[in-house]
Amino acid sequence: MIPGVAKERNSKRREGNEIEFSRIVAFSDGVFAIAITLLVLAIAVPEQLRGESLGEALWAQREDLIAYALSFAVIGRFWLVHHRFFGEVTGFDNRLLAINIFYLAWIVLIPFSSEVLGDHGGEEAAIVLYAANLSGVVLVGLWLVADAHRAGLTSTDAASHHEQRYRAIYIAAVFLASIPVAFVAPGIASLMWLALFFDPSGRLARRSRTD
Amino acid sequence: MIPGVAKERNSKRREGNEIEFSRIVAFSDGVFAIAITLLVLAIAVPEQLRGESLGEALWAQREDLIAYALSFAVIGRFWLVHHRFFGEVTGFDNRLLAINIFYLAWIVLIPFSSEVLGDHGGEEAAIVLYAANLSGVVLVGLWLVADAHRAGLTSTDAASHHEQRYRAIYIAAVFLASIPVAFVAPGIASLMWLALFFDPSGRLARRSRTD
Amino acid sequence: MIPGVAKERNSKRREGNEIEFSRIVAFSDGVFAIAITLLVLAIAVPEQLRGESLGEALWAQREDLIAYALSFAVIGRFWLVHHRFFGEVTGFDNRLLAINIFYLAWIVLIPFSSEVLGDHGGEEAAIVLYAANLSGVVLVGLWLVADAHRAGLTSTDAASHHEQRYRAIYIAAVFLASIPVAFVAPGIASLMWLALFFDPSGRLARRSRTD
Amino acid sequence: MIPGVAKERNSKRREGNEIEFSRIVAFSDGVFAIAITLLVLAIAVPEQLRGESLGEALWAQREDLIAYALSFAVIGRFWLVHHRFFGEVTGFDNRLLAINIFYLAWIVLIPFSSEVLGDHGGEEAAIVLYAANLSGVVLVGLWLVADAHRAGLTSTDAASHHEQRYRAIYIAAVFLASIPVAFVAPGIASLMWLALFFDPSGRLARRSRTD
Repeated sequence: MIPGVAKERNSKRREGNEIEFSRIVAFSDGVFAIAITLLVLAIAVPEQLRGESLGEALWAQREDLIAYALSFAVIGRFWLVHHRFFGEVTGFDNRLLAINIFYLAWIVLIPFSSEVLGDHGGEEAAIVLYAANLSGVVLVGLWLVADAHRAGLTSTDAASHHEQRYRAIYIAAVFLASIPVAFVAPGIASLMWLALFFDPSGRLARRSRTD
Repeated sequence: MIPGVAKERNSKRREGNEIEFSRIVAFSDGVFAIAITLLVLAIAVPEQLRGESLGEALWAQREDLIAYALSFAVIGRFWLVHHRFFGEVTGFDNRLLAINIFYLAWIVLIPFSSEVLGDHGGEEAAIVLYAANLSGVVLVGLWLVADAHRAGLTSTDAASHHEQRYRAIYIAAVFLASIPVAFVAPGIASLMWLALFFDPSGRLARRSRTD
Repeated sequence: MIPGVAKERNSKRREGNEIEFSRIVAFSDGVFAIAITLLVLAIAVPEQLRGESLGEALWAQREDLIAYALSFAVIGRFWLVHHRFFGEVTGFDNRLLAINIFYLAWIVLIPFSSEVLGDHGGEEAAIVLYAANLSGVVLVGLWLVADAHRAGLTSTDAASHHEQRYRAIYIAAVFLASIPVAFVAPGIASLMWLALFFDPSGRLARRSRTD
Repeated sequence: MIPGVAKERNSKRREGNEIEFSRIVAFSDGVFAIAITLLVLAIAVPEQLRGESLGEALWAQREDLIAYALSFAVIGRFWLVHHRFFGEVTGFDNRLLAINIFYLAWIVLIPFSSEVLGDHGGEEAAIVLYAANLSGVVLVGLWLVADAHRAGLTSTDAASHHEQRYRAIYIAAVFLASIPVAFVAPGIASLMWLALFFDPSGRLARRSRTD
């Protein structure tokens, strides 16, 4: 319809297709809710105690609990971002749905990566796997947002979009940078993830815009 | 009510029963969302490492990851088709609900077939099981669509319905054809599934209609 | 409010509380959807093959598949009944919510009973457990419906309510009658369940009303 | 906006953001529904029988069933409270969402604590874990409610809020008090939980208000 757009996309407006739209959101929410709840299955219940007390056996599983808390916060955070993004989506097409499903595939992988991290926390492969999984989520999320923005399917203004992109790139960069570090010093790699809490991306994004 | 219809069906219109209708859709979406998320449980977490590194143990599970990616795409695709079909449904009766539940039973079986495929990828029985499961989904889906169409419960026009049927038959044919091949050459059987990506069904359907 | 009612119930009308009401329904649907999907986890994936082929190992699990199909149909049927019942609910109070949760607790137990049935199909304890579980669902469901009816929370007329009650009692009677039989002849007990497909309850109910 | 409020909170009204709001509720309900359904996975299915009958093996698992029933009631009750609280929420901000996710993390832990309780019911560590988990739920729930109340995001009047707080503190106190008791006499600690059924909190709250 719009001249100059190379490949026309056959999209539906959100208004007038509210039921179809809300199904997409409900399906995504369902997947998030299940993925976040499955995390609990990764905490091993001590079956047979071999000479140790139950308290000691539970204490030995503290890394499972840390991985649970970390991944719950991570998926919860991603859900919030997804929630906010879809709050600004004004239309959808098959391509958006397909990228969204691809995005969810990376989310659903987190309980697996998290369980590996909980069971083999100190090892480099566990940290690489976890960092790669979360980088994947962030990068596919970036693609989802950028694609919807380009196709005019969101109401996000250019400035907010710019900021969102910076934030996502920052998060992905932290995880990707921790991968090579994990091969040298696994303990330091996971400490690098703490950089996410500083989240200077908003400030960075704002500065780059005012330049 | 309509003369000439052998067995009268006591159906409800979608309008005026929106809440009941949306529950059916929500229940189906829930089942899809859970089935797609349960796929992650099929990726075995290496518990005890026997002389190998964690990286090697994870690498040995790459077939689990391939089966995960494949089945996530497959269930996601089926969800899209189900989503689109129910977008055109204008009424429902107990028969539609029953066939829909039967359809979901085939969807929910996919995590099982997928896990068998991931654990025993090269063996004929795994490929036969997977192909049979997906054929089942497609054929029951075809039944669901045809039955709703015949009972006048969809707004799909004859041409689109025709096209949908061709597509479903094409997909089922690919899976069914791969079953005998699996007994001779398991590796080739799963390669046959790639034929799904060509999806000439749309073109076939259109050609047959213009004949 | 109504004179003569011993214990006044502080209920809310469905109209004007649509969001709260739909949450109850959505929560119930979620529980049904998860319980029905968890059934797939009961089908054991052959891990290590000991001298047998994968096909033989899968064939040895055919009882798991039968239990899956049976329980999927059972939960699906209960969902339909629950769906229809809540379609007629016009108000709710804490008591209705509590009985509904108690009802769901019996539904969620089905994947467990079903797995026991699939693994130990021929044994009396498995059949007793399954029959007891389903009797529990039906009887608590009967309580739910009767209680809501008595409190004036449904729009069901007396005749339909009468019929529903007969049907539920018939189903519970079949399951309960199969329990003593299971101790003598387990194989016959499960065959008794086929009596459910005749479902003469509708006819029985109608006859008893016209008497 | 409001002068005197130290840290301004950028909240959205529920009206006009119904879709976003209902997603939060739907996500929470999904997590509750999955957590309550996962409880069934904690009931161990007897795999191989060693000289005992299936009936005896099932009987040996009666503690699993008791833990299931207890935790189903507990999560169901928490869901009712959450349901009622969100019925009075009139606005939301990121902080409310974050505390809600933190609250859900404690809910999702219940299937784990419950399984430990079912497998090692008589041991102090199992009782301490369970009591700590439920105290956590109640205290974080208290924080959630108090925070929303302080930020003016609920329509709860001061009196009801007062009563809710008393009730939550009473429940948390029972669980916390049972923790030191568990180290001396585990059997008595779990009996202390029966005090919850007396629930004098409503009366206490009312008395303290009239003082």
